[in-house]
Amino acid sequence: MFSGDYDKALAALILANSAKELDMDVTMFFAFWGLFLLRDPENITEDNKTTYEKMFAAVTPKGPKDLPLSKMNFSGLGKKMLLDMMEKDEAPQLDAFLKGARKKGVNFFGCKLSMEVMGFKKEELIPELEIVDAKEYLKDALESDIQLFI
Amino acid sequence: MFSGDYDKALAALILANSAKELDMDVTMFFAFWGLFLLRDPENITEDNKTTYEKMFAAVTPKGPKDLPLSKMNFSGLGKKMLLDMMEKDEAPQLDAFLKGARKKGVNFFGCKLSMEVMGFKKEELIPELEIVDAKEYLKDALESDIQLFI
Amino acid sequence: MFSGDYDKALAALILANSAKELDMDVTMFFAFWGLFLLRDPENITEDNKTTYEKMFAAVTPKGPKDLPLSKMNFSGLGKKMLLDMMEKDEAPQLDAFLKGARKKGVNFFGCKLSMEVMGFKKEELIPELEIVDAKEYLKDALESDIQLFI
Repeated sequence: MFSGDYDKALAALILANSAKELDMDVTMFFAFWGLFLLRDPENITEDNKTTYEKMFAAVTPKGPKDLPLSKMNFSGLGKKMLLDMMEKDEAPQLDAFLKGARKKGVNFFGCKLSMEVMGFKKEELIPELEIVDAKEYLKDALESDIQLFI
Repeated sequence: MFSGDYDKALAALILANSAKELDMDVTMFFAFWGLFLLRDPENITEDNKTTYEKMFAAVTPKGPKDLPLSKMNFSGLGKKMLLDMMEKDEAPQLDAFLKGARKKGVNFFGCKLSMEVMGFKKEELIPELEIVDAKEYLKDALESDIQLFI
Repeated sequence: MFSGDYDKALAALILANSAKELDMDVTMFFAFWGLFLLRDPENITEDNKTTYEKMFAAVTPKGPKDLPLSKMNFSGLGKKMLLDMMEKDEAPQLDAFLKGARKKGVNFFGCKLSMEVMGFKKEELIPELEIVDAKEYLKDALESDIQLFI
């Protein structure tokens, strides 16, 4: 999960939830913009951050509700329209799919290097997140039947 | 196939056509923006659509010729330039690759939830499209040797 | 490798380097915008190019240092900020990961059709690049344990 877009995160989490319902093991590895999804807006800290890291934390999305659409976001108007269309069809929103994935036991991996570069602290993201490096991701991916870069 | 961009659809369909020529089985699963590629501009309907769904249908691309580039589209100028460069090299355009994929027997799956949220009706898209949910996609993907999220 | 973005190329090359360190065989297939990464700014030629191809070559990124961010590029300001954040953490930059991948023996494949359409000549890109078509890519991908579309 590299992308930090609402629609792509939705696709990834719908697949993760569906796979768990089919009794598949699921691991999601979050790198770069993908980490925005896992931020907890109640747990933002400025401790031990450089000026750049504070600025970066301030201008980037804080958790699932904050992510923009990858297309037709139109400063949030397009996203609001999509959310209304989803509501009309009683489709759950992104945070519900994230909660579902956590409850169903999806493994959450976060990219160590991305965390360091962006200055995110472990306690700012969801608690079950395990910080791993690219090699640990690759070893896991080697054992899996499906791999998707989203 | 999540993306609704001309260039990414081209990459996906060139791979699909080439794979069929190598006697591989090919299934393409279209979700979200990816569904724009399969719209038939001759078969747009407003029946049983909400106001939002009608607006959405009106402002989004209608079929392969209408898709923008993911980069350097410049309101269509960049796309025109790329199409001219393709023509000079006698490279077929996107609609030719779509026709080829249909003729060669690529399986076309459409995401049920995306269809409902966007308000697209089955009769508005290419007739061989089969509407499936994420679980059916995953079961198919589990059996396949290559999976790509485009 | 379809994308021509700094951040996505970074993700791809970090994975490629890490995989080689784990003794995995790695092949990267570059198509469309992905080819920008492999351009050598010292080796740009205008020979045997149409007017469009010359224009295209002039306005597109020339090698790893020139690639924009996929998000928050802000005309290069966002990218500068990210590079500064990487430097502070002593994370190598994109060109170092490209050098590493070349040194470690990653196989570099370039898409024949993309090269023709964009008018790139073999001598303008890194010398170890092998020009192949989509079928050769697919045959290679069939034999591999992990495939990612980036």
